[in-house]
Amino acid sequence: MTDAPNATADPASLASISSEEIFAGHLGGKLSVELSAPLDTQRDLSIAYTPGVAQVSRAIAEDESMAKQYTWTDRLVVVVSDGTAVLGLGDIGPRASLPVMEGKSALFKKFAGLNSIPIVLDTKDVDEIVETLIRLRPSFGAVNLEDISAPRCFEIEKRVVEALDCPVMHDDQHGTAIVVLAALNGAARVQGRGIDGLKVVVSGAGAAGVACTNILLAAGVADVTVLDSRGIVARERADLNEVKAELAQRTNPRGLQGGAAEALAGADVFLGLSAGVIAEELIASMAPESIVFAMSNPDPEIHPDVARKYASIVATGRSDFPNQINNVLAFPGIFKGALDAGARRITEGMKIAAANAILGVVADELGPDKIVPSPLDPRVAPAVAEAVAAAARAEGVA
Amino acid sequence: MTDAPNATADPASLASISSEEIFAGHLGGKLSVELSAPLDTQRDLSIAYTPGVAQVSRAIAEDESMAKQYTWTDRLVVVVSDGTAVLGLGDIGPRASLPVMEGKSALFKKFAGLNSIPIVLDTKDVDEIVETLIRLRPSFGAVNLEDISAPRCFEIEKRVVEALDCPVMHDDQHGTAIVVLAALNGAARVQGRGIDGLKVVVSGAGAAGVACTNILLAAGVADVTVLDSRGIVARERADLNEVKAELAQRTNPRGLQGGAAEALAGADVFLGLSAGVIAEELIASMAPESIVFAMSNPDPEIHPDVARKYASIVATGRSDFPNQINNVLAFPGIFKGALDAGARRITEGMKIAAANAILGVVADELGPDKIVPSPLDPRVAPAVAEAVAAAARAEGVA
Repeated sequence: MTDAPNATADPASLASISSEEIFAGHLGGKLSVELSAPLDTQRDLSIAYTPGVAQVSRAIAEDESMAKQYTWTDRLVVVVSDGTAVLGLGDIGPRASLPVMEGKSALFKKFAGLNSIPIVLDTKDVDEIVETLIRLRPSFGAVNLEDISAPRCFEIEKRVVEALDCPVMHDDQHGTAIVVLAALNGAARVQGRGIDGLKVVVSGAGAAGVACTNILLAAGVADVTVLDSRGIVARERADLNEVKAELAQRTNPRGLQGGAAEALAGADVFLGLSAGVIAEELIASMAPESIVFAMSNPDPEIHPDVARKYASIVATGRSDFPNQINNVLAFPGIFKGALDAGARRITEGMKIAAANAILGVVADELGPDKIVPSPLDPRVAPAVAEAVAAAARAEGVA
Repeated sequence: MTDAPNATADPASLASISSEEIFAGHLGGKLSVELSAPLDTQRDLSIAYTPGVAQVSRAIAEDESMAKQYTWTDRLVVVVSDGTAVLGLGDIGPRASLPVMEGKSALFKKFAGLNSIPIVLDTKDVDEIVETLIRLRPSFGAVNLEDISAPRCFEIEKRVVEALDCPVMHDDQHGTAIVVLAALNGAARVQGRGIDGLKVVVSGAGAAGVACTNILLAAGVADVTVLDSRGIVARERADLNEVKAELAQRTNPRGLQGGAAEALAGADVFLGLSAGVIAEELIASMAPESIVFAMSNPDPEIHPDVARKYASIVATGRSDFPNQINNVLAFPGIFKGALDAGARRITEGMKIAAANAILGVVADELGPDKIVPSPLDPRVAPAVAEAVAAAARAEGVA
């Protein structure tokens, strides 16, 4: 999004947290590996290490499936990144992406009780990333791909899904799409309307933009217009990559051309999924009762207080404003459900089930400032896990 | 060792631990990833995840060295195996090796407070293993190579050490060698003699055999004879690989030929480092006051009760007999010391310092059944870490 730069969205509510406090909270990292069996006596050592461990290793050598039961890998999610699209910060490299990946691993434990470790890779080569995960396969039970730049992320996810017999999901795509679908259903329900007839503008044709567009189309939204940094993704454009060209075939039904101004005039929904900025006057040009999801992290495309002057429902990706549309509502429960069911992959049906389950938790509590559950709501992950596991069984992938 | 098969060494004292208890102790694996920072409130989430985490990622992007302080990687040891030489079980594959690697990771936390995760690789190709670790480099702070078969392990360790700017050690080689050196010094001191004049027979020319031979020669032992599965490693043999041919140049000073019988007749020390069996009558043929280290896991080359009929000091690798020569005396403290000092590699001087520190802990408690500290002795790892860190600084690698 490059149209009409506005004042940078200022993360005002973060002002109460000092940099010192943030850095202190990261000292030594945010994860710790602990023992789940005691190692205090010679007897403990004989059981967990030599000579006892040899019996377990022998049993797995005879029947590999025993590894599911007698190692930690069956409940272990690796959070994998090459650091090329970290939050809204861009290609900052694998080491700089680590605090985000550690946070993600911590959230897997906190909300789903799953073990998780960050694996950051010092390569951006698609073949090498896929190959590395194939080599690492016996070390884990599921793969959460994270913060990998588009369009590489589409091919990487596709190839890793094909290569591995375990749940694999690029969270920036599908986690975001699932929570956006839940939130948009929530917002529309608050307003007493359905989502089918909404005019939706998706700003950003990266990982999240493409996945959100796909899930909205699948959910029945007929009028989706996508913006990339050069304007509306339209059939007429000659500068589109393969993914965007394909997107142009299925979106922009009114044949709009131009930029954010042309797309947003009279639109019902703005989905901000880029690291850009959106001008206040463009939000003002939307239809009455408009819905604004300004989800770029850490800086929303427009400050929510400004957006609220025009929109009736405003959401961001941040934990310090109401209506936080955060993937943490989806990914812990999705992976837990998939692993609980022993699923070999994560299907479209499992994703839709997750979105429905997220909204279901707050079905009776909805309001303009509560279109989705709080990311801290402990009811969400179990509900999502249960729905996802049931969908996996129903679809025959478990 | 294939000479004169004897009754299989029976792990008698393990009989008191049932298989059920061992498998129950491995259920779900032996490791757990826990949060080291709270994630209970919106404020916690704003600090540890978005938007706060972006400040830390930005800081590391500007100065990569900040990752040492603000991620967990600086204190994270990856335990890496391809499952080709697991305990005495051989090439049982990466999945079957996992219980051993998990145990190792647990020991790193228990004794040195270091975080550690197992990485098992679905490839035996030397180039691919080295390349994979180079790609994973930003994910960890040190590499413990484990249970990789010889002679591949020598080349893999050499190349990984060259490629990475962090502590790397193949524990089956050097951890074993360090503890054997400490134990042999301990045994000789109990007997009131030095190690220089001992006639030592090393059974096994794999990872541990080669490393033990090297450290004993470096420590001044003049008469070392090495046995592989075909007999004495001697200059005359045409069937030796490169590593063994080189070993033949520096060992067997009396020019012995033949097998275990010829090597052990009149020898002072038997170091069992193979998965083989040694006949009782050969142990009986050793010199008076002989020392037997039967270290194969889980089954010692000769049952310690049988060996004790002839030898004055007997040790094994097992936790259920006295004098356990276990790498756990070395590796936690070595990696802790290396990481404490910020060492870029692990040198010979650091290894010798570790051996001296291990024995130093029990210098005043030595006896025929206490030639090394117990693996559970909490004084060992701190003493080793301190000595190793000091050696790293003295040698200029920190």
